[in-house]
Amino acid sequence: MPLVRVSIREGKTSDYRAAVGDAIHRAMLDTINVPADDRFQIFSEHGPGALVFDAGYLGIPRTEGFLAIQITLNLGRTLEQKRALYAKIAANLAERPGIRPEDVLINLVEVPKENWSFGKGEASYAK
Amino acid sequence: MPLVRVSIREGKTSDYRAAVGDAIHRAMLDTINVPADDRFQIFSEHGPGALVFDAGYLGIPRTEGFLAIQITLNLGRTLEQKRALYAKIAANLAERPGIRPEDVLINLVEVPKENWSFGKGEASYAK
Amino acid sequence: MPLVRVSIREGKTSDYRAAVGDAIHRAMLDTINVPADDRFQIFSEHGPGALVFDAGYLGIPRTEGFLAIQITLNLGRTLEQKRALYAKIAANLAERPGIRPEDVLINLVEVPKENWSFGKGEASYAK
Repeated sequence: MPLVRVSIREGKTSDYRAAVGDAIHRAMLDTINVPADDRFQIFSEHGPGALVFDAGYLGIPRTEGFLAIQITLNLGRTLEQKRALYAKIAANLAERPGIRPEDVLINLVEVPKENWSFGKGEASYAK
Repeated sequence: MPLVRVSIREGKTSDYRAAVGDAIHRAMLDTINVPADDRFQIFSEHGPGALVFDAGYLGIPRTEGFLAIQITLNLGRTLEQKRALYAKIAANLAERPGIRPEDVLINLVEVPKENWSFGKGEASYAK
Repeated sequence: MPLVRVSIREGKTSDYRAAVGDAIHRAMLDTINVPADDRFQIFSEHGPGALVFDAGYLGIPRTEGFLAIQITLNLGRTLEQKRALYAKIAANLAERPGIRPEDVLINLVEVPKENWSFGKGEASYAK
């Protein structure tokens, strides 16, 4: 059920995008009990000036490799699960495609289970 | 007050987009008491690899006609209203522009009434 | 911690976009205690038909200068702070780049502090 929005700099390769999507998805499988086939991701590309980040907020040095990940998901994950998710996404992205952990912004938006329809006009999780 | 984000495959016609917008808007009028002139929709287009969906999650077969609809709206709709909304959006989209109900993902994000300004810098619903 | 999504009409200059970003950011500093270096903004551009607004909802006359601002931020702002934020964003945008206050839609999505990672795979506000 997570719906993942990833905002990246324009001009990246399709390999880069696929690797980013894989990294995020595997992290969700490993840390917050998302089913393997529950993969829904929306990528948007942004030129200079359209993906704005501060290069030092919270003492974390960010570079042009910055990307923003916003995940809408069901309520119910514990703080420890969220911590594990953030750490795993960053670790996976560092491994491939090779993104600095400092450049990874993640935000979660939580909703109740009844707020999803995954097709056929049905409330998929509220039967 | 709903703010509707629709993520579609790139290359669709403006007629397709208008029909999608109409279908969603009419469904909201019919099922969750949205005023007729409360229409605010943002469409984004995504190439292959940038709008990622699983072709079988929950046993629902999805195709390249897939689209994702994320609606931010006020708290307060019942489960029955949400069910009716999902069903009506899917039915309307099937009628025109002719989208398979299996290809329609819908997600709701609910906020309190005071979280909106519809212009003039005012909290439109919190007066 | 706010993550700001701004949806504008395509074809605007980079000066316009920078002015919009500045206007929103300064308003957050002045009204809801956002740190000066906590600036993260994502702009998307939309052609005619892809950024849909009603020209008269709530009796507010909107024009092609319309833009939609969606801000994800931490829970905890009072209604008075939200009112001040809306008013200040609209006033700043009117001053520069010169957007009509009627054309400014603002929506807030609130999340708990633990829902953010600003880098290094850490839960930035939940230590």
